[in-house]
Amino acid sequence: MPALESYRRELDYSYAPGLFPSLEAMTKRPELVRRLLISSKGQGSEGVLKLEALAADRHIRVEIADKALARISGKENCFAAAVFEKKPARLDAAGDHIVLHHISDQGNLGTILRTALGFGYHDIAIIRPAADGFDPRVVRASMGALFSLRVREYEDFEAYGREFPHHAAYPFMLDGSVEMDAAAARAARPCALIFGNEGAGLPPEFQRIGQPVRIPSSDEVDSLNLAVAAAIGMYGFRRERA
Amino acid sequence: MPALESYRRELDYSYAPGLFPSLEAMTKRPELVRRLLISSKGQGSEGVLKLEALAADRHIRVEIADKALARISGKENCFAAAVFEKKPARLDAAGDHIVLHHISDQGNLGTILRTALGFGYHDIAIIRPAADGFDPRVVRASMGALFSLRVREYEDFEAYGREFPHHAAYPFMLDGSVEMDAAAARAARPCALIFGNEGAGLPPEFQRIGQPVRIPSSDEVDSLNLAVAAAIGMYGFRRERA
Repeated sequence: MPALESYRRELDYSYAPGLFPSLEAMTKRPELVRRLLISSKGQGSEGVLKLEALAADRHIRVEIADKALARISGKENCFAAAVFEKKPARLDAAGDHIVLHHISDQGNLGTILRTALGFGYHDIAIIRPAADGFDPRVVRASMGALFSLRVREYEDFEAYGREFPHHAAYPFMLDGSVEMDAAAARAARPCALIFGNEGAGLPPEFQRIGQPVRIPSSDEVDSLNLAVAAAIGMYGFRRERA
Repeated sequence: MPALESYRRELDYSYAPGLFPSLEAMTKRPELVRRLLISSKGQGSEGVLKLEALAADRHIRVEIADKALARISGKENCFAAAVFEKKPARLDAAGDHIVLHHISDQGNLGTILRTALGFGYHDIAIIRPAADGFDPRVVRASMGALFSLRVREYEDFEAYGREFPHHAAYPFMLDGSVEMDAAAARAARPCALIFGNEGAGLPPEFQRIGQPVRIPSSDEVDSLNLAVAAAIGMYGFRRERA
């Protein structure tokens, strides 16, 4: 077995740090899991026993790896991490998509993945440059939702648009011409909900793409946190509501 | 002038790190600002010039304080911080309240304050033990929203309830008996939207308080991130919608 490296984008594997994210990897995408790392402190705990049973069942190698876990997670009390193979997914052409344009914060990206799964969205497009969806900090913030989603990176928005020309596009912009709820009530399907960068939002040319929408909010704030805005958008456009 | 200490809960002052949070302090609650700290790197920049003009106008002392800024913010590139007096507020008995029960993460608390202001909620009750609403990390994550809100801590939920017995309580629980949108459509006013701890949620006794509500979400996730759940709740119950 090769030595485990600190995570970087170029590696063909990544880490799911934490009991819950590791459990998600082992139950949802066991075929991707190469090894399971366990801390000596965590041995015998309920969560770790469950992980070990799953690993035995799937013939996945288990290692005690205290130092690697501390390095990977940046925490002293990380009990487990699944080492998993990074595999770009193909988005479902029939599903609603979440498109994240130049998202930069790993915590935001992970939270958005978790929220997407919570509201029934399974297909996520990330437009580069952007945070890396496979980064262990993203996997952790997603609480392992990554393993139930199809996530794919695109060089630019045009590359995404060429692949899915029939998705009805709803860019979320502070000056979108229609309120979100009104647009959601008569949304075309499948749709693409498009969210911009934390600081800059979407560039002005998105005003000419699909139907720009705004989330009604008070003049007292400049904007909402990106993970919050995306959550409101995903909630507003969820299919069960239609 | 006494030396500035690293922030701790016992101090009667705190810090608003960052240009935007400092601007919010200086424009919304200038009477609380004791000093303005500026980094030598930031001098001459547009944001710092604006802060200096506001300080001159209000006779607030300005200091170049690179080391203190790095220590307070934990970042090398923090250009400014307002030093402000901590003053517990009195909540408005006529307003809708956001009640945060044992919230523990500073980033979540700050994000929730920002979202509250964004959806027109100005009154926040924090039930101890909980993160400190005046902590510089909270102030930063709130983007300075703290300075437009009334925030008060309570020893326990009973203490809050004694002060505001007429608020219609809506505890957000995974097993709340009514879906949020249905409850919001006929919400009594003023109301209190109650959210629990990041890991544990609200304790079961909240099932007997007011009308417990749930956010409809997929079985594929265990729960939503707290700042996300609170955002959906605040959006759903906002007054403009009623």
